[in-house]
Amino acid sequence: MSNNTDNQTLPSGGRAAHVCLTPALIPLYNVEDYIVVVIDIFRATSSICYGIENGAEAIIPVSQVEECSAYREKGLDYLLAAERDGKVVDGFDFGNSPFSYTVEKVAAKTIVLTTTNGTHALHLSRAAKKIVIGSFLNLTALSTWLKNQDENILLVCAGWKNNFNLEDTLFAGAVIEQLKTDGFELDDAAIAANDLYQLGKHDINDYLKKTSHGERLKKLGIQKDIEFCLQIDITTAIPVLEGERLVKLS
Amino acid sequence: MSNNTDNQTLPSGGRAAHVCLTPALIPLYNVEDYIVVVIDIFRATSSICYGIENGAEAIIPVSQVEECSAYREKGLDYLLAAERDGKVVDGFDFGNSPFSYTVEKVAAKTIVLTTTNGTHALHLSRAAKKIVIGSFLNLTALSTWLKNQDENILLVCAGWKNNFNLEDTLFAGAVIEQLKTDGFELDDAAIAANDLYQLGKHDINDYLKKTSHGERLKKLGIQKDIEFCLQIDITTAIPVLEGERLVKLS
Repeated sequence: MSNNTDNQTLPSGGRAAHVCLTPALIPLYNVEDYIVVVIDIFRATSSICYGIENGAEAIIPVSQVEECSAYREKGLDYLLAAERDGKVVDGFDFGNSPFSYTVEKVAAKTIVLTTTNGTHALHLSRAAKKIVIGSFLNLTALSTWLKNQDENILLVCAGWKNNFNLEDTLFAGAVIEQLKTDGFELDDAAIAANDLYQLGKHDINDYLKKTSHGERLKKLGIQKDIEFCLQIDITTAIPVLEGERLVKLS
Repeated sequence: MSNNTDNQTLPSGGRAAHVCLTPALIPLYNVEDYIVVVIDIFRATSSICYGIENGAEAIIPVSQVEECSAYREKGLDYLLAAERDGKVVDGFDFGNSPFSYTVEKVAAKTIVLTTTNGTHALHLSRAAKKIVIGSFLNLTALSTWLKNQDENILLVCAGWKNNFNLEDTLFAGAVIEQLKTDGFELDDAAIAANDLYQLGKHDINDYLKKTSHGERLKKLGIQKDIEFCLQIDITTAIPVLEGERLVKLS
């Protein structure tokens, strides 16, 4: 996609902070010109931030339960996380709930995490200058680091089955809130995400209750997970992709 | 894409009003289950609504200037509309400015209109139950008609080069504003579009000035066109696609 003049243009001077609303739109960006932040608030990137904060050596994101199982067959000492329909799959260590990513469970471990939307977004962004992971948990640490990088920023919302969702967009808007005073050029999606964040920021949980996805997640009985994932700045670690592994940015 | 269970789900009872934020996301919907509204506020669908209101017999949307020229070679009596970089292409009758679509110019004529984003959206939606054209000009007439159809509604934003733009999304939000009291099930994009409309509705022109696209259009010197396209309810005709021709819905 490099040098595709039909793609999202970058400012000739200064830096851009763009928002890619779904993985289906990633081909419209020359990702190699950006640091990419992957966002999957409910619950993959929140759990990843929490796990890395709590000392996990690495987290390996995979798309399918079968890929996750394959790591067991390698005979190595991985923790395997896989869910279907909101329940831990038989034979796996745990699922995607951030409550599984405590110090006691993950310190010094490598976890293989099954996340369809998140892995899809990571895979499509692999040509980026760097890929880091964002969630409300590490919002300010991440935003501060982004401001200091002197690079264009692309916030990639993992969305839901390739389509738009509000929670990932709202988080992108929260990052834009911290970047926008630093002279970043914003695209329409960044402006929209930030405006939606203004509407929701006073009570994000309440704002998201009206969404279809929130309704679906409530039915899965993970309301406590949702509340956990909407906590702001309880971590400072920034997970970064190295090869296939997410590790703590040093 | 029919019966693709990964696609946007429809309510088992009642009707849905969904918003497709860019043509790149159309494959995520089973368009044959919807009436599709194509939206390209600056300026294709605004000019189409105005032209059909003013008695144009039909408007034929095409993607490329060359396709438009081909109609001249057919030897038929078409008006040809084509622009590049905001200027009428040499040898064409006029461009995409709505001011060209007055009664004097278009009554009883068939116009071939070059519009890349709009034609792309129409083409990808061709399996829909019906395809109609929306703009602020026919907002209430369109919304009232949609409410009376007993069908699912998909509002397709033509966007900009396959990506998100604020003006088309804001208009989708304005339609949702009129539909939402009628019990339509909304997806996250419809909720977001409607929330953005709440932010912008008091002065849409002012709200859109901060967008990247608004800046681009201002440079093209079409500020008067923009103001024209943001007028609400100055027309009542609803253009509908029949074959390759947009005609007045009877």
